[in-house]
Amino acid sequence: MVFKKITLIGTSTESFEDAADDALDRAEDTLDNIHWAEVDELGVEIASAENREYQAEVVVAFQLEE
Amino acid sequence: MVFKKITLIGTSTESFEDAADDALDRAEDTLDNIHWAEVDELGVEIASAENREYQAEVVVAFQLEE
Amino acid sequence: MVFKKITLIGTSTESFEDAADDALDRAEDTLDNIHWAEVDELGVEIASAENREYQAEVVVAFQLEE
Amino acid sequence: MVFKKITLIGTSTESFEDAADDALDRAEDTLDNIHWAEVDELGVEIASAENREYQAEVVVAFQLEE
Amino acid sequence: MVFKKITLIGTSTESFEDAADDALDRAEDTLDNIHWAEVDELGVEIASAENREYQAEVVVAFQLEE
Amino acid sequence: MVFKKITLIGTSTESFEDAADDALDRAEDTLDNIHWAEVDELGVEIASAENREYQAEVVVAFQLEE
Amino acid sequence: MVFKKITLIGTSTESFEDAADDALDRAEDTLDNIHWAEVDELGVEIASAENREYQAEVVVAFQLEE
Amino acid sequence: MVFKKITLIGTSTESFEDAADDALDRAEDTLDNIHWAEVDELGVEIASAENREYQAEVVVAFQLEE
Amino acid sequence: MVFKKITLIGTSTESFEDAADDALDRAEDTLDNIHWAEVDELGVEIASAENREYQAEVVVAFQLEE
Amino acid sequence: MVFKKITLIGTSTESFEDAADDALDRAEDTLDNIHWAEVDELGVEIASAENREYQAEVVVAFQLEE
Amino acid sequence: MVFKKITLIGTSTESFEDAADDALDRAEDTLDNIHWAEVDELGVEIASAENREYQAEVVVAFQLEE
Amino acid sequence: MVFKKITLIGTSTESFEDAADDALDRAEDTLDNIHWAEVDELGVEIASAENREYQAEVVVAFQLEE
Repeated sequence: MVFKKITLIGTSTESFEDAADDALDRAEDTLDNIHWAEVDELGVEIASAENREYQAEVVVAFQLEE
Repeated sequence: MVFKKITLIGTSTESFEDAADDALDRAEDTLDNIHWAEVDELGVEIASAENREYQAEVVVAFQLEE
Repeated sequence: MVFKKITLIGTSTESFEDAADDALDRAEDTLDNIHWAEVDELGVEIASAENREYQAEVVVAFQLEE
Repeated sequence: MVFKKITLIGTSTESFEDAADDALDRAEDTLDNIHWAEVDELGVEIASAENREYQAEVVVAFQLEE
Repeated sequence: MVFKKITLIGTSTESFEDAADDALDRAEDTLDNIHWAEVDELGVEIASAENREYQAEVVVAFQLEE
Repeated sequence: MVFKKITLIGTSTESFEDAADDALDRAEDTLDNIHWAEVDELGVEIASAENREYQAEVVVAFQLEE
Repeated sequence: MVFKKITLIGTSTESFEDAADDALDRAEDTLDNIHWAEVDELGVEIASAENREYQAEVVVAFQLEE
Repeated sequence: MVFKKITLIGTSTESFEDAADDALDRAEDTLDNIHWAEVDELGVEIASAENREYQAEVVVAFQLEE
Repeated sequence: MVFKKITLIGTSTESFEDAADDALDRAEDTLDNIHWAEVDELGVEIASAENREYQAEVVVAFQLEE
Repeated sequence: MVFKKITLIGTSTESFEDAADDALDRAEDTLDNIHWAEVDELGVEIASAENREYQAEVVVAFQLEE
Repeated sequence: MVFKKITLIGTSTESFEDAADDALDRAEDTLDNIHWAEVDELGVEIASAENREYQAEVVVAFQLEE
Repeated sequence: MVFKKITLIGTSTESFEDAADDALDRAEDTLDNIHWAEVDELGVEIASAENREYQAEVVVAFQLEE
């Protein structure tokens, strides 16, 4: 059994919680067998966004098919 | 005056905020004189949970009795 | 174009999300041209607060005037 | 010449050595021109495994085709 | 559900693998509901040991009783 | 909006600057919507190269298609 | 032979040296077979203390009984 | 003698070297008695720039007046 | 309530303890409402000093006025 | 009593354990009064080796003669 | 095969690139069988230099003779 | 101008300050042109010492002869 880790950054205009869920939603749309995730960084993009854009960098671990 | 630090991981099916509060609730149930806490890591358990299980690793500092 | 970074710690009796917004609100009241922010640490002050005081350490990057 | 790095987690019921080899075996099955690898973390999964499941997180660097 | 983490250092005159197992054995003798473990540091004590004493620092996470 | 991060290592016989550009050039040849990049490590390969081979490890963040 | 590590924070109104000794004194009052200690952080509490309260976070390693 | 440290991020469309100099130039325009500087991070902004905008985060230490 | 953090480096020809106090003295001369401080680094300047110049890098957190 | 630390990287075609021992053997051949060692990094060289070459970076502390 | 690592800091009045080459030149003048090098820190000395003195801290790994 | 860094650990039965000076004394006895030093770790050896043996790990930078 081998896992692979990839790094996604979810975004939300509402909260860090939603930004992390945004990354997890995307991961679950495109990957099977996700086992766990780790939140590595929280940030806020302000200059190029209309309002605050909350960002959560999430490392997702999923099991590779045999 | 001497403090001791212990590490707890709270969990919630709702949010990281609730997971951190879960750890703090547990600490306050069993320890007196808690002074402060630090959030060290945020993670999500997915494979062994029905839904996403948000986890917050919290280091709690409490004052030891003289 | 040169940016400067400063470190603020916002507080809230409600949540880490509000504590981060508290720091960002303060930054936006006193600084122009904020571009982005990074959340460096999350903590909770308990001993000297009536309830839990959530704290978010936020590093704010803003563009200096030429 | 450009390299790419990916992160795999190998597992073994025997040892950390075998877990690292498990990740390297998988990498070599699916990638050409692997140059080197770094072991980033060693862990043990206990609750969801029959016995101890040793895990080795391995970052693999391979040369991209021109 | 709340987990607690403690830090143990296992030792062995044979190998790092055995040193890590030594810490896990001790943890399992005295704690219920261990979920996972992380190896934080590997070292060797030489001066005060007859032969090389391999050491593995292992952080063990176990579920607290409700 | 979700970003993904990948890690590339560019090389150059001239300089670290060229090595970083080498990684960025490759990223731009194969990925759309690159937003930013971070330089994580600088190194030099000497034994297996005719001259010094400068290396720059670059983490590239690009926006995933909806 | 298995060691356990715990984290104490000693305090002193005089110096960091005394704060570290304060933590070590406490450890030696309550634990047998302490082998070594590591100083992880030095800090100063000012707002809630009459004078400066120097703090030393000390990780203490002691041998568990067989 | 007391020093203060501030964090600036210089930018350049040419190179990381120029970006670091950009931050140092700005520091020298506005501060006396700069003693040394440390480069903490190198990055590249791509999405909001016409070309690659190289960035160097520089921590500058200067002596405060007595 | 919002705190700001600044970084000062105190110096002393006597000891690290005095160097940290030197930074704290300076902070208290110029800032109100200092709450706590953290010692980040200890160093010694030798070449450009007559004797050893002990240095303590101290991060000071103070409450901003509303 | 003063210790000095040096950094060696041992290699083995068999295992990380042997690679660490390889570094320790070399240290003991050329240094007296080695007190302890720390394993800092584990890696694998693949491109320039016939098989996998396991590498263990080991920091060795030995007591200097008075 | 055992490698040893040493840490050199090269300097240049021109650039970080030249400072790193300065350290590598010195290493190649005095050591055989250098295999690779890592750049650990970039800094600038200003107070005691006529102009900016760029510094690159370089860790050099070379193969020890059997 | 090239500097080299070495790592020494000074010891004292009195204090961390004396332990750091112990390492610096040794460095100055055997090396010319020491420019600066950094304190990397503070620890205490207890089991194999009669009393507490304070230890300070000090990285010393000295200028190599041309």
